[in-house]
Amino acid sequence: MIKIGLLGLGTVGSGVYKIMENNYENIKNKVGTALEIKKILVNDIDKQRELQVDRSLITSNYREILEDPEINLVVELIGGEEPAHKYIIEALKNKKSVVTANKLVIAKHGNEILSLAREKEVQISYEGSVAGGIPIIRPLKESLAANRIDEIYGILNGTTNYILTRMAGEKLEFNKVLQEAIKQGYAESDPTSDISGLDAAYKISILASLAFETFIDVNRVYVEGIENISLRDIELAEELGYVIKLLAIGKKENDGLDIRVHPSFIPRKHPLALIDDVYNAVYIHGDAVGDVMSTGRGAGQMPTGSAVVADIIQVARDIHNKRLTPNLLESFQNYKLKNIEEVENCFYLRIQVKDKPGVMSRVTKILGDNRVSLASVLQKHRLTPVVPLILITHPVKEKYINQSLEELRQLDDVITINNIIRVEESS
Amino acid sequence: MIKIGLLGLGTVGSGVYKIMENNYENIKNKVGTALEIKKILVNDIDKQRELQVDRSLITSNYREILEDPEINLVVELIGGEEPAHKYIIEALKNKKSVVTANKLVIAKHGNEILSLAREKEVQISYEGSVAGGIPIIRPLKESLAANRIDEIYGILNGTTNYILTRMAGEKLEFNKVLQEAIKQGYAESDPTSDISGLDAAYKISILASLAFETFIDVNRVYVEGIENISLRDIELAEELGYVIKLLAIGKKENDGLDIRVHPSFIPRKHPLALIDDVYNAVYIHGDAVGDVMSTGRGAGQMPTGSAVVADIIQVARDIHNKRLTPNLLESFQNYKLKNIEEVENCFYLRIQVKDKPGVMSRVTKILGDNRVSLASVLQKHRLTPVVPLILITHPVKEKYINQSLEELRQLDDVITINNIIRVEESS
Repeated sequence: MIKIGLLGLGTVGSGVYKIMENNYENIKNKVGTALEIKKILVNDIDKQRELQVDRSLITSNYREILEDPEINLVVELIGGEEPAHKYIIEALKNKKSVVTANKLVIAKHGNEILSLAREKEVQISYEGSVAGGIPIIRPLKESLAANRIDEIYGILNGTTNYILTRMAGEKLEFNKVLQEAIKQGYAESDPTSDISGLDAAYKISILASLAFETFIDVNRVYVEGIENISLRDIELAEELGYVIKLLAIGKKENDGLDIRVHPSFIPRKHPLALIDDVYNAVYIHGDAVGDVMSTGRGAGQMPTGSAVVADIIQVARDIHNKRLTPNLLESFQNYKLKNIEEVENCFYLRIQVKDKPGVMSRVTKILGDNRVSLASVLQKHRLTPVVPLILITHPVKEKYINQSLEELRQLDDVITINNIIRVEESS
Repeated sequence: MIKIGLLGLGTVGSGVYKIMENNYENIKNKVGTALEIKKILVNDIDKQRELQVDRSLITSNYREILEDPEINLVVELIGGEEPAHKYIIEALKNKKSVVTANKLVIAKHGNEILSLAREKEVQISYEGSVAGGIPIIRPLKESLAANRIDEIYGILNGTTNYILTRMAGEKLEFNKVLQEAIKQGYAESDPTSDISGLDAAYKISILASLAFETFIDVNRVYVEGIENISLRDIELAEELGYVIKLLAIGKKENDGLDIRVHPSFIPRKHPLALIDDVYNAVYIHGDAVGDVMSTGRGAGQMPTGSAVVADIIQVARDIHNKRLTPNLLESFQNYKLKNIEEVENCFYLRIQVKDKPGVMSRVTKILGDNRVSLASVLQKHRLTPVVPLILITHPVKEKYINQSLEELRQLDDVITINNIIRVEESS
């Protein structure tokens, strides 16, 4: 019998409890011994819960879990940075193995946590922290262990993917879809972390750290959200043969790692372009395996619960068999993180110019002088003195785009720069 | 240092050798000790090989590997049933762990091999046996361990998928594409095992055995190949909003397991419909995780090599750490395998009838009398006395279709029954 302490009984915590209850015998067979949830930490003992849990299991005192010598596996599902981080550290210090789905803590404190687990000879598993139920952390560490991975592309945030899908499908503006998504529970009441791209940044930091065998400081990852994507951009993307997705990107290049999160034009036929609604996907390129992609539900009680319970089964088996699965990533490598200014991309520029002679020549001269060459130009004539100009560039370093934009803003012909979106060309 | 014996130096064997050589330091870090390929078994020592291998490593005497007490990991990459099966058994009996990519041996003798490995307390791993480099065996056993899996759909044979993709893309008939595929190396010179669906049957037997925690006898799996798919069927599928794929299906239903391989109509928007060329994909539904799908290259030297070396790393780590990763599937379950006659599907029927009054009524009466109801009817008029009739049925047990076909064949109005293909409706 292995006794487990559960920290948190929210959405995922309840899912984990249910899965463990419904699959009790099955899990017992897989582990080789029964698993018992001995204590559950909650904020408010008296809160009404959908899930019926024996009152004696519940405590609001974390010491009853972290200091109980009978508990040797702690499952952290509180979320957020503190006190989750403190509890994980405390559990490891007390030689308890830890399973968590906390992307924020792993992305920010992964180095400290992994080292401590190694020192204390206990396990730390976090499959649930990225892409919900899609098996990705373990496959990266184990199934693709023979590969040098050089590219990861992910759609790692379900809320933003849902919003972009609905904007495109129903021709709605961002704010309208966001408000409805909040009402329907597809977005949190404070959706900032999702919308701003930060949630995806935590996740790509975790995946890229594993794939490139290093530790990526999430604070140094370039992040841009979807707040500025308008229906007009989505329609123009369609017209040009693309869709817009919030992409999380990790690439290993000769001059450093390129890790970033931002909206991207993706060619309509690219496999990631077809990932809609709340689905997540991870696309990986390795030298031996070539391209592999996995997709599934990236969040939610049961998908994330599935990943957490899989981790619990693995860790409990190792505890039961008194053995330590060594962390595969013992040799951390150091890489330079590329500055976004040095990253090369194609760009979509949507600007509004005055309808007068020579405008196009003046605009393209500025671009050309700054090494920006154009792949396509779309000029939409309307019955106004204002002309929308849509440009797609060839690959160019971001700093040259930024210089161009600065000069364009000063040009009297340019009324507004509506949007700049990076364009992924399929490799 | 862990010493490895390699059986076979063909396509995959050479790939494994290369990956292990190119990633020597990286693999050493991951395992915790160096891996040395001590001996390689080949048929013909003097054969000219693309790969440069030290002559002293090569032997044509399997005893030099299977009876060498220094070798504790045997990697079987000969393929085919015998002597591969005999060597695997021999290696396990001598307490050597085994890594193999041999779908045929695992599908046919998996029970014997897994039991023997358990008895001898050594490892058996076979990630490379299904879907090349796509991580699927380990995720099924480990990452989805908290799920009750009830459905697997796979595109598991690259050759047939390549042929169907080219038929559809270039409007070519089966035989023409097959001959070209053989010339270009996309199909084997004897393509029977691929074309007939047998190769996919081995693979779905392995996946379904893992997913449903049982042992599926591949001889009892219903198998139908793509030999009878004509360009006309592909064109009609397109017209009706489908594509044709060779599907490998495993379903757990209340009245037994439904395991089969056959060409299927798949709705054009289904994720599997988009898997083209030599790509493979596996689509799984579990109670907690919902739908997950993984896709990638299903065969080839480097993708399969990637899976085999990942297995080698895992098994070598366990040998190095003197521990046995227990087989997660210790509790085999018994299920009835459903007879194909009892399986319910929608069907596409393409028949040719005489162009005379009352034909449609007589044909549909036979169907109706046999409980077959129609979802759609497409009647193509041509300037001949022969009318092609394309019918899509509602779900109905296969036995009722078979009865209908028998009666239709006796009907004077029916000239030919061109084809019958099962139709997957998205669930």
